[in-house]
Amino acid sequence: MDLSLQQIIDGIRPLHEGTLAKAKMRTAQLVMPHRALGRLHEIGERLCAMQGTLTPRLGRKAVLVMAGDHGIVAEGISTFPQAVTGAMIRTFLAGGAGINAIARQVGAEVWVADMGIIPDLDAASLENGGRLLVRKVGPGTANFASGPAMASEQAYKAILTGFELASSLIGRGVDLLGTGDMGIGNTTSSAAIGAAITGKGIADMVGPGTGVDDAGIRRKREAIRRGMDLNRPDPRDGLDVLAKVGGFEIGGIAGILLAGAYHRKPVVVDGFIATAGALIAHCLSPAAADYMFAGHCSEEPGHRHMLAHLKLAPILDLGMRLGEGTGAALAMSVIEAAVRVITEVMTFEEAQVPDKQ
Amino acid sequence: MDLSLQQIIDGIRPLHEGTLAKAKMRTAQLVMPHRALGRLHEIGERLCAMQGTLTPRLGRKAVLVMAGDHGIVAEGISTFPQAVTGAMIRTFLAGGAGINAIARQVGAEVWVADMGIIPDLDAASLENGGRLLVRKVGPGTANFASGPAMASEQAYKAILTGFELASSLIGRGVDLLGTGDMGIGNTTSSAAIGAAITGKGIADMVGPGTGVDDAGIRRKREAIRRGMDLNRPDPRDGLDVLAKVGGFEIGGIAGILLAGAYHRKPVVVDGFIATAGALIAHCLSPAAADYMFAGHCSEEPGHRHMLAHLKLAPILDLGMRLGEGTGAALAMSVIEAAVRVITEVMTFEEAQVPDKQ
Repeated sequence: MDLSLQQIIDGIRPLHEGTLAKAKMRTAQLVMPHRALGRLHEIGERLCAMQGTLTPRLGRKAVLVMAGDHGIVAEGISTFPQAVTGAMIRTFLAGGAGINAIARQVGAEVWVADMGIIPDLDAASLENGGRLLVRKVGPGTANFASGPAMASEQAYKAILTGFELASSLIGRGVDLLGTGDMGIGNTTSSAAIGAAITGKGIADMVGPGTGVDDAGIRRKREAIRRGMDLNRPDPRDGLDVLAKVGGFEIGGIAGILLAGAYHRKPVVVDGFIATAGALIAHCLSPAAADYMFAGHCSEEPGHRHMLAHLKLAPILDLGMRLGEGTGAALAMSVIEAAVRVITEVMTFEEAQVPDKQ
Repeated sequence: MDLSLQQIIDGIRPLHEGTLAKAKMRTAQLVMPHRALGRLHEIGERLCAMQGTLTPRLGRKAVLVMAGDHGIVAEGISTFPQAVTGAMIRTFLAGGAGINAIARQVGAEVWVADMGIIPDLDAASLENGGRLLVRKVGPGTANFASGPAMASEQAYKAILTGFELASSLIGRGVDLLGTGDMGIGNTTSSAAIGAAITGKGIADMVGPGTGVDDAGIRRKREAIRRGMDLNRPDPRDGLDVLAKVGGFEIGGIAGILLAGAYHRKPVVVDGFIATAGALIAHCLSPAAADYMFAGHCSEEPGHRHMLAHLKLAPILDLGMRLGEGTGAALAMSVIEAAVRVITEVMTFEEAQVPDKQ
């Protein structure tokens, strides 16, 4: 399958309205007060409408952790050294990170994609190296405070790569995907994308990330302001925003989300960085948001503004701000429960329970 | 084990502070930004402090659905006929209700206790009758708008029965309990308990329950007002509040929560009715709240006030208002994930990842 971005966008269809209406009728018959399970009904109905059936199935689940390095770290915007990006990839493969613990809980596989980190990791020599997909677009982005983060060809390639990786997992039977991220510096890039696309002010979009102090937050704001003034990303053009102030892993996440929509499979968006990818995907194809679930609301303050722009209500709100796909994975259990509610709960008639007086 | 209520209360100890401090130190070393998984850390640390170990285990999980009928239905406060209470018990045993679907998702057993419903169900003749525990305290409560709901001996017996049922499950290896409820009319009883114990006004505590209209809400408020004026429950005496305006299943839930605290096992409180039981338990033993997790925040408006009184932050907030234990069961996956985070995630040192600069 070698599609162009335009072919992908042209292939994305909105939800199946007829099935959505039928799913709502089914919910109304379930042996409980009307819509008494709240958001679980909406989630289950949307899954029906994605797949065009009242018996949607979620079999294999996987989290795709997209990794990339960021030139913007030269501006002193992170408390962690850049080497952490590569070191954490080893930890993901060794099964010792937050995402591994949560993915084991929900029964999801963890795959890691090197979309453009600086070190060259040798998959064959690493523990569980088979789970590392090396698809480097470049050795880290350039510093967007002094020029575009990447060439427009690289932005295009990052998105197509994410699309192909996700399509491949879907082709191998994955029904529910979660997006994860790893990249020191990427809350700064994501805040810039958020400011460019949502139109919110930079001050609203910038938070402490991995934990910078007030001076660090001022440096982040200042770096973004310079980058925006210099690069002038076009908010109507997702590719342009990605190229000017984005990251390789963020482009990859946008591609995963386009793949979900194209193949009519749900994708759970993680937190701040993943939602920056969702903004890019939505910019390219607004209908792609029909196939997204927001796993959680991050503690990073700008996340709420991004979710509001996408009209996505987060499933969880637990003060998390780790990334890696942790919020996406944790929400998978709720999404699976929603499928069980619409497919397994009896109707009043089946249960022979008297309905309202 | 034949304990008196006083012996149970005397046996409840607060959390192990030394282990709590050690657990927080462990969290601070995990290979992620400081406390980046937010509430998951608090949950995991509290489990450590309950069990006095940094490697808490959650093996078997079970939801105990406590059922009872309510004389207050004579006041026209529910849209569903009283026969639904018994009919739903059959549905729970047949596996066709909301709680069954969600419990299957999280791998929890569903047990049902007849704490005092009107019909006499013959467990032996029912599908999965072995999961029905018949412990009738009485054939439904009396109408508390015209007298006490039950005798004080019945209130005592309801609590002890809940304690014994939960202790028996814990004795058979259940490490994580969820409380569920079934009883047409029980949001009215729970609102009365909430008003009596929290001191909030009746108007703040009364909501639509299974879905009554505005006239129904007025009837609920009026019935509670008459019941409170007539019975004058003593807010400092949990047994008195339960006897005057409570329900047999609500007393049973209070007993489950005391059992969790007594045996140092976590119990997940479901929604509005279960939290009314938690208020009774907390009234009898404030330290019991240390062992409670609030599974979710119900759509029933008074629930937030109850949770605030108990100083419990809900894990989920998905607009649910079904009861049956659904909110408790759904939160179990998050609680298990929290245990995995504190026990399975590597430290910076173990993962050989550089810490903050």
